[in-house]
Amino acid sequence: MLSVEEARERILSHITTLSAEDIPLTGALGRILARDAVAGEPLPSFANTAMDGYAVRSVDTLGASPTSPVRLRLAGEVPAGRVYAGRVGAGEAVRILTGAAIPDGADAVLEQERTEVADGIVSLLAEAPAGTNIRPVGDDVRVGDLLAPQGTELGPAEIALLAALGVHPVPVTRRPRVAILSTGDELAPLGEHPGPGQIRESNAPYLAAAVARAGAEPVLLGIARDRTEEIRAKLQQAASADLVLSSGGVSVGDYDLVKQILSEQGSIDFWRVRMRPGKPLAFGLLGATPLLGLPGNPVSAAVTFELFGRPAIRKMLGCRQIERPTVEVVYEGEDIERAERRQFVRTRLTSRGGTLVSGTTGAQGSHIISSLRGATALLIVMEGEGVIRTGDHAQALLLNDAMPWGNE
Amino acid sequence: MLSVEEARERILSHITTLSAEDIPLTGALGRILARDAVAGEPLPSFANTAMDGYAVRSVDTLGASPTSPVRLRLAGEVPAGRVYAGRVGAGEAVRILTGAAIPDGADAVLEQERTEVADGIVSLLAEAPAGTNIRPVGDDVRVGDLLAPQGTELGPAEIALLAALGVHPVPVTRRPRVAILSTGDELAPLGEHPGPGQIRESNAPYLAAAVARAGAEPVLLGIARDRTEEIRAKLQQAASADLVLSSGGVSVGDYDLVKQILSEQGSIDFWRVRMRPGKPLAFGLLGATPLLGLPGNPVSAAVTFELFGRPAIRKMLGCRQIERPTVEVVYEGEDIERAERRQFVRTRLTSRGGTLVSGTTGAQGSHIISSLRGATALLIVMEGEGVIRTGDHAQALLLNDAMPWGNE
Repeated sequence: MLSVEEARERILSHITTLSAEDIPLTGALGRILARDAVAGEPLPSFANTAMDGYAVRSVDTLGASPTSPVRLRLAGEVPAGRVYAGRVGAGEAVRILTGAAIPDGADAVLEQERTEVADGIVSLLAEAPAGTNIRPVGDDVRVGDLLAPQGTELGPAEIALLAALGVHPVPVTRRPRVAILSTGDELAPLGEHPGPGQIRESNAPYLAAAVARAGAEPVLLGIARDRTEEIRAKLQQAASADLVLSSGGVSVGDYDLVKQILSEQGSIDFWRVRMRPGKPLAFGLLGATPLLGLPGNPVSAAVTFELFGRPAIRKMLGCRQIERPTVEVVYEGEDIERAERRQFVRTRLTSRGGTLVSGTTGAQGSHIISSLRGATALLIVMEGEGVIRTGDHAQALLLNDAMPWGNE
Repeated sequence: MLSVEEARERILSHITTLSAEDIPLTGALGRILARDAVAGEPLPSFANTAMDGYAVRSVDTLGASPTSPVRLRLAGEVPAGRVYAGRVGAGEAVRILTGAAIPDGADAVLEQERTEVADGIVSLLAEAPAGTNIRPVGDDVRVGDLLAPQGTELGPAEIALLAALGVHPVPVTRRPRVAILSTGDELAPLGEHPGPGQIRESNAPYLAAAVARAGAEPVLLGIARDRTEEIRAKLQQAASADLVLSSGGVSVGDYDLVKQILSEQGSIDFWRVRMRPGKPLAFGLLGATPLLGLPGNPVSAAVTFELFGRPAIRKMLGCRQIERPTVEVVYEGEDIERAERRQFVRTRLTSRGGTLVSGTTGAQGSHIISSLRGATALLIVMEGEGVIRTGDHAQALLLNDAMPWGNE
């Protein structure tokens, strides 16, 4: 049997990062930067005012106070999105609004709350030392600063920053096309009523959603019955994909034609991985396309996808972090016996008084699909002896993008 | 000035949940359930085997051991996706593979590792008490069980569960259309070089991405210059949206035509909210469409969207949890002085030894867009006096869907 790490290493060694493409920044949400994004200009690109007020020469403000205001001539204003045409001379003040460029000659802005204006005269009620209320060039970003490294997933904040620096279009890696195949006579497709002895297929819907969440494009091939020609035909459709995910057909079952056909059409290895759920796994090349064969049990398929499929997709995308983060948590629940196989327990994290607490989502059989619902992490019970008890520290792999936990 | 809670209550009191629509389950990722999803059938729907092996009558296995095997006649097999045509009689065993229906007459399955087969005879090397390796009907889900309540966001796990129970198509709330308008002569649109005194517009790209992440459909109206007709024309385009987000034009600036035109065309209030960043805010109805006017500063726009815009969208979607979760964290960084206004400090959470630690993302000016990058939460510094220091506990509002934190 392979360890989880050995299986992952073997898989990832066959995965290469896809090519880059330039796309509009407005369509880049969730895409992965294909190159470092570096600032080609400073931000702000011109010195501007942090407040509404008056641009002045700081020397002219010396001694100003409410009891002895300094009186300056209102020489003009800076219109929004323009620059002041002239220069602020001695004894002059120029009206200026937040974000507008500091006019030549001025070196401070006194906020309007500390001024009084009447008849073309601005009375300053306070001094404004050089630099007051001025945001200098490059205060936020300097030329050459790394805005986001290659492999960054672009979220709203990264998109705002790239927009502010004019990084548009933006180079991102191509989205992998991931073909999804389910196998087995026992599967009834979505929308059809199962016959006697059949179950409703749920792995393809799960995998399609999880593949999309990983940043790739799912291509549903449907269900292949346990007939040689049908499996061959489906696999041919998969040949143009960047990755093939199959579920079912990799265990020791007598009907596992998939194994036989994969062995014919490519170089596929069948592994037993030292983990629970999800022991049987297949991996190899179908022609030139990597194929990952997941177990048929829904929970096993989900967990092996998270451990092996998602990292493969994230490597294709060139992500900086291929794996989801693991966090240290404090376990709470019934004793769990360590075993020869590493266990991945569906768990829900909560933060209690600043401590991350991990409790299970109930029964953990590999057929208990409801154990996935509400799971926000996989508690990792390492191989070995003894038990893990309430209060023990352990690592947990974050699962759920949307709502990792709530306070108690 | 309004408190954050008062402003939020006033806004949400004008927001109603949108209508429902039935869509295919395969397209439901990220959508919000419009009604409770209840199991109309049990899961599994028939008793089946957890192992590959032999279906038997438990009474026939009494006394079986490696030294004294019980010998049964191999009477047949259960083909995948079918049911056994006959009935397991006394002295008989039927070959069965994981997940297949237990044949009539049998009440246990002995795993194949504990059997030997030769010449149509199955030798049992162990007893199989009644129920051994049998997953009973409804073991995972019973008829009438709540699969997911109304308002649940459908992720991969929920989709798998609904697929397994045949909930397809699925009723979800309509996606809100959110019109996004930027205002101001100082803004250069994406792809154009800013003129003197102009800045690159970054609020609309941010908001479009954040609106999409919130589950709504962004509709970009572009930039309205500071001219009455132009602002009026843009707002007319917005009338068919479910929500309008504008940025800029709501502060005390002299050029804030937007305020004037909004007051003409709808019932819009202008508020000062006791928070930093993001004090000025507008809210009201543009005809019948709610309009939220955010400040123009990029960081203020982002934070006010998170606090007021996103909850409005999530309420339209009928989400169970309108707000993102807040978590208790331990602060680490320079002292922060409490103030009359509530402060929202961009922060990055890490889990250190099971404790959630919150450190700032650097300079926190409302023009420092780079402070948003890498922020995974907003540390909430409540109104009041004194300072918050390293080691103090505080609440933090989770910001980032994708990667809330990593271990140290």
